Amino acid sequence: MTRTDAPSGPQPDALHPLDADTALEPLPDGRFRGRASLRYRNVGGSFGGFVSAVALKAAMLHPARLGEPIALTVNFAGPLVEGELTVRARAARTNRSTQHWLIEVAQEAVVATASAVFAVRRPTWSSLESVFPQVPPFDAIEPLPAGRTTPWMDNYDMRFIRGGPTPAGVAQAPADSVSTMWIRDDPPRPLDYLSLTSICDAFFPRIYVRRPDAGSFGTTVSLTIHFHTDAQTMAAHGERELLGTARALQFRNGFSDQTAEIWTPEGELIAATHQMAVFRT
Amino acid sequence: MTRTDAPSGPQPDALHPLDADTALEPLPDGRFRGRASLRYRNVGGSFGGFVSAVALKAAMLHPARLGEPIALTVNFAGPLVEGELTVRARAARTNRSTQHWLIEVAQEAVVATASAVFAVRRPTWSSLESVFPQVPPFDAIEPLPAGRTTPWMDNYDMRFIRGGPTPAGVAQAPADSVSTMWIRDDPPRPLDYLSLTSICDAFFPRIYVRRPDAGSFGTTVSLTIHFHTDAQTMAAHGERELLGTARALQFRNGFSDQTAEIWTPEGELIAATHQMAVFRT
Repeated sequence: MTRTDAPSGPQPDALHPLDADTALEPLPDGRFRGRASLRYRNVGGSFGGFVSAVALKAAMLHPARLGEPIALTVNFAGPLVEGELTVRARAARTNRSTQHWLIEVAQEAVVATASAVFAVRRPTWSSLESVFPQVPPFDAIEPLPAGRTTPWMDNYDMRFIRGGPTPAGVAQAPADSVSTMWIRDDPPRPLDYLSLTSICDAFFPRIYVRRPDAGSFGTTVSLTIHFHTDAQTMAAHGERELLGTARALQFRNGFSDQTAEIWTPEGELIAATHQMAVFRT
Repeated sequence: MTRTDAPSGPQPDALHPLDADTALEPLPDGRFRGRASLRYRNVGGSFGGFVSAVALKAAMLHPARLGEPIALTVNFAGPLVEGELTVRARAARTNRSTQHWLIEVAQEAVVATASAVFAVRRPTWSSLESVFPQVPPFDAIEPLPAGRTTPWMDNYDMRFIRGGPTPAGVAQAPADSVSTMWIRDDPPRPLDYLSLTSICDAFFPRIYVRRPDAGSFGTTVSLTIHFHTDAQTMAAHGERELLGTARALQFRNGFSDQTAEIWTPEGELIAATHQMAVFRT
């Protein structure tokens, strides 16, 4: 494959696509320069998970960075199209153990705004209240076949237990918007904040589950991630699969929400993620 | 009651406290000037719901505003203390029917950053998937008695069905962090985006439910609201009560999340709200 969007840098072909395509180069004015990914493109622009990973990466790379991400919100203002992008990440306030970021991803105009809270985590009393779904193991489920509707999906091994893509024109749409799937980077890649962020947007808008009509359209407007993990725990997880489960609470007048959880196969809840999407039917 | 924090403006005593205390005056440089509320103060600074309402109000008042709020995220960077505050609301991008805001609330330093998406809503196919909780009506529940632990709570009529404040030192803490309550502004006030925003932060951090020990402490770090209503629907609702239900998915290493829903008594879901809090035990 001829890559026209390879970022400059050492041996890009040795890097995982997510690392190659989210490569950021510091600019003299403190911003970073990158490129929209062709591999992670979606209808009309880059996949929101890719945009979110780029936004977060700018804060992660920033020399003033303190701690690790706790919360991230990305608002998608316009399509990220083929070509160069810049990211400005600014620490609006740094406290003793927390740091507050405002981030803008831009091309000719702003394509995404983001805010993030970073913090130093320390071991405390902990308690999991949500319940790990009862599902067959990863190996027992067939991967989504090739011929997917949009390029970014080819970067994931997605195995649907429930609520997978429904062919247009099926007689019976599901009664609810729940999707439950195993997901892993394809090719596999050790889990970190960037891949976890991208995976948090890998549930397609819930309208495609509820209304799989040819005329339906949905796209994420605002994505929030609450991280329940840390770099050390993710390093121990490695390249293995994650379980994601998502559902809409409501579709109303052109906007639908989605609330989702990301789990390890051992039943650790590593992220809760919530979004608003715009939809048409 | 002698009010020392009354904002300048016409007849402040005729205004509801939320309107009086969130009053914002435009400054020549495009920012707004307001004052931290004493009536909505919490331990160490203003109640996060008040800070969030002020942040949102700056975008609502801005002459460039398009449409109504769809999504709002507020990150609390430091306490808002007694005295003047400024709010800068900047439209990072305006599209045909959506608008993306970045907002900063500041005193000597930034006390909160926020981002918001506004949009023009149009009637479409709609579907509610979440389920309205089975609860006794507002009038059947006793209000939380006076002598509350923090001043902001006195601005609300809160009636707990489950998961109310637990006296410190009780033998048995609840097994989960679910709280369900009726809530209404006190004195009553017609519902709008400002009061709804403030109510979305009116669930105290979940650690106080699960660990009602004297040594427990929790405070919201990041608050996200996904709005499922509009000005016209809220005007029809008027001053009546709302039902809120909240729970944590997980407490882990000093941070806990919370996912919550706000309903009308008729079973309309008008907001989904999600937050991360820092806690100590």
